[in-house]
Amino acid sequence: MNDEQLKRWMEKRKQRKEALTKDNLMEGILAGNLTALSSAITLLESNLPQDKVTAKELVSACLPHAGNSIRVGITGVPGVGKSTFIESFGMHLLQENKKVAVLAIDPSSEKSGGSILGDKTRMQELSQQSNVFIRPSAAGDSLGGVARKTREAIFLCEAAGFEIILIETVGVGQSETVVHSMVDFFLLLMLAGAGDELQGIKRGIMEMADALVITKADGDNIKKANLARREYQNAMHLFPPNKNEWIPKALTASSLTNTNIDKVWQTILSFQNQTKINGWFKQKRQSQDKYWMNESLKELLMADFFLNSAVKDRLKAEEAAVLKGEKSSFQSADDLFEFYKQNR
Amino acid sequence: MNDEQLKRWMEKRKQRKEALTKDNLMEGILAGNLTALSSAITLLESNLPQDKVTAKELVSACLPHAGNSIRVGITGVPGVGKSTFIESFGMHLLQENKKVAVLAIDPSSEKSGGSILGDKTRMQELSQQSNVFIRPSAAGDSLGGVARKTREAIFLCEAAGFEIILIETVGVGQSETVVHSMVDFFLLLMLAGAGDELQGIKRGIMEMADALVITKADGDNIKKANLARREYQNAMHLFPPNKNEWIPKALTASSLTNTNIDKVWQTILSFQNQTKINGWFKQKRQSQDKYWMNESLKELLMADFFLNSAVKDRLKAEEAAVLKGEKSSFQSADDLFEFYKQNR
Repeated sequence: MNDEQLKRWMEKRKQRKEALTKDNLMEGILAGNLTALSSAITLLESNLPQDKVTAKELVSACLPHAGNSIRVGITGVPGVGKSTFIESFGMHLLQENKKVAVLAIDPSSEKSGGSILGDKTRMQELSQQSNVFIRPSAAGDSLGGVARKTREAIFLCEAAGFEIILIETVGVGQSETVVHSMVDFFLLLMLAGAGDELQGIKRGIMEMADALVITKADGDNIKKANLARREYQNAMHLFPPNKNEWIPKALTASSLTNTNIDKVWQTILSFQNQTKINGWFKQKRQSQDKYWMNESLKELLMADFFLNSAVKDRLKAEEAAVLKGEKSSFQSADDLFEFYKQNR
Repeated sequence: MNDEQLKRWMEKRKQRKEALTKDNLMEGILAGNLTALSSAITLLESNLPQDKVTAKELVSACLPHAGNSIRVGITGVPGVGKSTFIESFGMHLLQENKKVAVLAIDPSSEKSGGSILGDKTRMQELSQQSNVFIRPSAAGDSLGGVARKTREAIFLCEAAGFEIILIETVGVGQSETVVHSMVDFFLLLMLAGAGDELQGIKRGIMEMADALVITKADGDNIKKANLARREYQNAMHLFPPNKNEWIPKALTASSLTNTNIDKVWQTILSFQNQTKINGWFKQKRQSQDKYWMNESLKELLMADFFLNSAVKDRLKAEEAAVLKGEKSSFQSADDLFEFYKQNR
């Protein structure tokens, strides 16, 4: 690099840095600028100390402008047609003049923050529209970290004026529980099958669903889909009633023929309407706020303990004593905790 | 009280205290003395500092003699016939020349450690036999505390030579999960009904069961019970397979006519046999040891934080800021944790 090149490069770098100040980004976000929103979310995902400070200021500044959306979690096993459903559903929402953001959560993902391509090619039509913001999975090494990034990204999208936030999760592992605890409405996509459709989905997920959509209800599959819908509707009656008085719905839909996509939206709207009237909507968001504060505290407390180097050595010895039957689990915990208090 | 009475009382009190030394109790327990075992468990449940020290020493001394039993958790909704089942089942085990201990866990219970009467009158025949030890619910204000007392009581019973430990739980709340994580075999009692039997039991419990017994399979009820058994056996095939390679069994039984009580025992024996051969029996106990060590550490860490009086005040303010949308849950947690580190 010669002097001239270096000078240009330094100039560029300075401009880029300036563009990433809190105030610049904030102004962009409130104006609904997608580049600003995107850069802000990249800051959330950064591990650089300086970026963390800016991200923190940005989230605080956005919070008063956040909250005015409906947050919808969408899950289902691989192969259920999540991407095509989100594409059809998103296009429908655009026709209703809504601004739609699509976020994804996948704690097992090793994708970096930059690999937007995967999601954009998956939702080709949707990604080319205005009033749409698509962002791939937040990367992260812990579920708590991914949750934090996703939840704060929701706030930024809301501050940018997005009215519907779709949060997609892969239908395996713990991510459903995480998404469920940050959305207003939880949608489970299911395939019509012959009984063994229950195999792929983790137990407990069905109970979380506010609505269940049997996908690919088109052509030869319609009959089977309707049958599955009735079976699930019956099964859901066996569950204990929801505190929010909402009775989970079972629907069929086709992303191919665009059948019933509007019904899914109507269902979400009537849920929103009902829970806003009975106060549950706000109550749930507040309990989610408290939940994440608590979870985050737990994670910090545990990390302070388990990452303490003196504790690490002692922990191994105590664990060995417990496994050999020399000490009870509780006694070891008591002793370890006392040791930690002396050495923290 | 006159001087003479006072002297006698002091004398008695001294004798009783002496009888409760670690060495005396230990000797009694290893000899299988039920009074010593009972006094030792009372010590476990005591909150007096001196008793805690003795209990701690006692548990440590008993541990090398513990472990030689099969620990069976028994749960089911009220009305399913748990007491009568345990009575029949216990009597059967005595006929097989086994020593049987029955413990109960009920975190919601307000019973004190002394109210043995309730359980003894429930299991009238069993409680009059030798080779049987029946102990009611451990009292406690936290699930963790009750778990600790119960788990340490198991060790004491084992040291006293009891070969089968039955741990009964009330079929509501979180106690099933607690019991599941301290037993080798988990038995779920169920009533035959018309579909709505699922209503009473918490979701997820069925998946934990190593065997499911439809109770009251006698007289007019036999047909219904057999039908329910088949339904549950089918339903259990939908569950993901167990890591221990055991396929959960569904049985019918009657405590009234003593039908199939022997089959339940045979099922437990073949489970024990299979999991001892494939190594899962030991592996599960070790993971339970680790689990309780971790749970106990978490509880201690959380208590140290939440009971810190400076933190308490700050927590209220932070929670209010989060609920008003002034601060994100994660930011509040970060700030609270920093504050705690300065003030602990």
